[in-house]
Amino acid sequence: MTSISPDRRSVDSALDPSAEQIRDMGGRAVEWIAAYHDSIRDLPIGPRTSAAALKELLAEPLPVEGRDFTDLLTVFREVIVPGSRHNGHPRFFGYVSAPGTAVAAVADFLASALNANLTAWRSAPAPAELEHVAIDWIKEALGCDPGAGGLFMSGGSMANFTALAAARHRHCGDAVATHGAAAHPAPLRVYASTETHHSIHKAAALLGIGRANVREIPVDACFRMDVDALVRAIEEDRAAGAEPFCVVANAGTVVTGAVDPLADIAAVARRYRLWMHVDACYGGFARLAPSARPLFDGMSEADSIALDPHKWLYLPADCGCLIYRDPEAARRAFSLDADYTRVMQTEPAEAFAFWDYGPDLSRRFRALKVWMALAHAGSRAVGDAVEGNLDCARHLAELVDASADFELLAPVELSIFCFRYLPGSAHAGSRSQSDEEELDRLNERIMLALQQAGSSYLSNATINGRFALRGCVLNYRTTRRDMEILLDDVRRAAEQAIEETR
Amino acid sequence: MTSISPDRRSVDSALDPSAEQIRDMGGRAVEWIAAYHDSIRDLPIGPRTSAAALKELLAEPLPVEGRDFTDLLTVFREVIVPGSRHNGHPRFFGYVSAPGTAVAAVADFLASALNANLTAWRSAPAPAELEHVAIDWIKEALGCDPGAGGLFMSGGSMANFTALAAARHRHCGDAVATHGAAAHPAPLRVYASTETHHSIHKAAALLGIGRANVREIPVDACFRMDVDALVRAIEEDRAAGAEPFCVVANAGTVVTGAVDPLADIAAVARRYRLWMHVDACYGGFARLAPSARPLFDGMSEADSIALDPHKWLYLPADCGCLIYRDPEAARRAFSLDADYTRVMQTEPAEAFAFWDYGPDLSRRFRALKVWMALAHAGSRAVGDAVEGNLDCARHLAELVDASADFELLAPVELSIFCFRYLPGSAHAGSRSQSDEEELDRLNERIMLALQQAGSSYLSNATINGRFALRGCVLNYRTTRRDMEILLDDVRRAAEQAIEETR
Repeated sequence: MTSISPDRRSVDSALDPSAEQIRDMGGRAVEWIAAYHDSIRDLPIGPRTSAAALKELLAEPLPVEGRDFTDLLTVFREVIVPGSRHNGHPRFFGYVSAPGTAVAAVADFLASALNANLTAWRSAPAPAELEHVAIDWIKEALGCDPGAGGLFMSGGSMANFTALAAARHRHCGDAVATHGAAAHPAPLRVYASTETHHSIHKAAALLGIGRANVREIPVDACFRMDVDALVRAIEEDRAAGAEPFCVVANAGTVVTGAVDPLADIAAVARRYRLWMHVDACYGGFARLAPSARPLFDGMSEADSIALDPHKWLYLPADCGCLIYRDPEAARRAFSLDADYTRVMQTEPAEAFAFWDYGPDLSRRFRALKVWMALAHAGSRAVGDAVEGNLDCARHLAELVDASADFELLAPVELSIFCFRYLPGSAHAGSRSQSDEEELDRLNERIMLALQQAGSSYLSNATINGRFALRGCVLNYRTTRRDMEILLDDVRRAAEQAIEETR
Repeated sequence: MTSISPDRRSVDSALDPSAEQIRDMGGRAVEWIAAYHDSIRDLPIGPRTSAAALKELLAEPLPVEGRDFTDLLTVFREVIVPGSRHNGHPRFFGYVSAPGTAVAAVADFLASALNANLTAWRSAPAPAELEHVAIDWIKEALGCDPGAGGLFMSGGSMANFTALAAARHRHCGDAVATHGAAAHPAPLRVYASTETHHSIHKAAALLGIGRANVREIPVDACFRMDVDALVRAIEEDRAAGAEPFCVVANAGTVVTGAVDPLADIAAVARRYRLWMHVDACYGGFARLAPSARPLFDGMSEADSIALDPHKWLYLPADCGCLIYRDPEAARRAFSLDADYTRVMQTEPAEAFAFWDYGPDLSRRFRALKVWMALAHAGSRAVGDAVEGNLDCARHLAELVDASADFELLAPVELSIFCFRYLPGSAHAGSRSQSDEEELDRLNERIMLALQQAGSSYLSNATINGRFALRGCVLNYRTTRRDMEILLDDVRRAAEQAIEETR
């Protein structure tokens, strides 16, 4: 190293602030975060605002001159935060949404300040090793073989996409990658249940496989794939000259939380030499909860598993993950050949490049928040929190079953619950189609009224053609008491919805 | 809202720490960041370590019990930081790598704590509006039309992929998305110069277009696409029954920083009805520097522009960006249809969904760091810093030109410089092929010795078949003095490399 020190503070201090300025900005951010986490239980979940009102407050031309951090933090606190939905609120049950954790936010802060770029080992040696450690922990949580490998990416949609790309490459070899899908004219087929997340269809569309070549397999009464129907579909397709190459199993569907019969699907995949991919984005980490563990038997036999640590590891967005049973099988689908990707190390662990296993080149240090959150809490506490979420969903199901004015629309397998409100008039005897449609409209109005009121939040699903109020417990803050409050809130929203249509 | 408050602190405090614990963890992180930024000029750029040594320090089984944050921060400070490359060092010239800024790290901290998920407006109203504002600022910086739109994503590779997917969809309609690439049997062709980033080839492979259908167009002596050769290639392909659908222009190649003749390429794209995509990941924001602005004439005519705010807006990874001239043309390539993506708002701005314009569903609040960094510094200070980077590269070129022991291998167009060391023996007269190969080997050893020494860092490129020392100035901390130190460091590395082979 040289002893000559170039001029410091040669540029605008907004780009390169002093340690004192950083302490001041960081300290204010910490204060806000501490207060936010402390008050999150008492905030209205969703904002009452409009695009026009927010645009009025936020839109302005590109500023030529800089502005104090204090002013920007004020806009954040007074406009952006009140205009946000608070996904960490204990009764935010919409979609599949984690609360984030404070330690993960701190890890993201450190990661952005260190600004490691995890393209390859050589560019970020310790961060790359830490990603391997965090992936190993996830493999252990899932019961995967030690030879498996993987990486973090933006989210579940990209993990599903990446898995399908690897599966197609194993089936087609390099011909499609080199010459395009036309080089392999026989239609390729992916199998997935009717309950599968649409990111699978989107991936098939983008990859040039085609959405229509994702063949949807019917489900049983518990919304799990009918494996006999899967076998029939494969046989039919083979007889017709199509090429089955991949089966996608769900470990927790986003509609009802169903876990497909993984071991049975694995046996079919072996028999027909299909790549088995498990979409475990929502459900996978429930294997840490003893009561759910048996559902995941067979998962480790999959060729790939997509996960979202930003779901049931409670981490903030974005953190998706893909595990490959045989990383070498995936490598050839993604590897690059360019000067700037030329690796001069001879030690295999030091020649390792993440770009060989997925679509990204630059990659944020996501592993830090996974490692820090898991190491800080420990797997037992995470498992206990997941178990608590499962218990909350089961408690809700019991409350619904015991209530005359509610009806469960799907079994509760993990932490998702689907139900609807039944007014007194709807309850007796069998219902006509128009009665059912009336109930659909009422429950949709109830959902909107509930979301407006701000104490509890549910989203929607269609269950056997009917509108369902749907919730997912995915927050360590949620308690049994919250489930009781939820039903009270739904009853209040129902009264309001019925009142408004009189 | 309800007045009933459920039990607090019902779970392990590592998942849900108190305000006091958050203040303590956050405060320690702020202290480290302030000290890190203050000392970054004096750190050795790259670690001297091995995969085995790091694994020894970091690998352990999934911990069952949790650990204090203090212990984890110690591992971060004592193992991870010293085992990282310091991309914010003013003489880290490798690849195309930004330093990050402190305010952007603070913004990432706030974003992870708020944990907004920018799937659609309804799920994050104010964050979604802020993303529109930040995109509008970028459009203004690039000179785009007001009707353009866009979104942030993980990085440039995904932005290039997404643009090619949109281009293919406009050309093929929904047939390929629905039935796969086989539904459109004529070979599709993408045109790009020989200097184009390999993420374009990777995208073509993944999309089922095929790497071989990216036709590489030769470049002129300044490494800019030869537009006459482009026209000839299009005409040849059309005559042979292939279907040209997309041309990729570079606004700053990663090898030499060349900017293709954008206005000429735009005219060809119009004439042949091709989707014009500009890969401006490295160079686009140089339009903020007056001396570089004319290079970007014609860029706003492109159908899509890929950018990396995590490059020349100095932000930490990850932050890529894609701008569409006509967002509606892109929409149909990505839109989903599922209950959980059903949007009930009728106001168009409130029905807006980011998933309609790219591959992701869950999306981190990247816009906050773009907005906060630009608003804090102002566009003038960013433009000044970019201008300073350009000046540093030009200064290096002058120093090289004035030195007998260095030779420039490519013109300096933006902030990338490619050169090599010439020992006294190599300098006189013309060189044989074996002399050239000797120089290649010497310069490769020089690069490795330089990287090992830790005061300056260059990566490599192949220029007209020869090994080049390649650097890119992309750091507001870098001064003219750093360029002088760099050449001294290279001379020292050369002495060492020559010494070692004697």
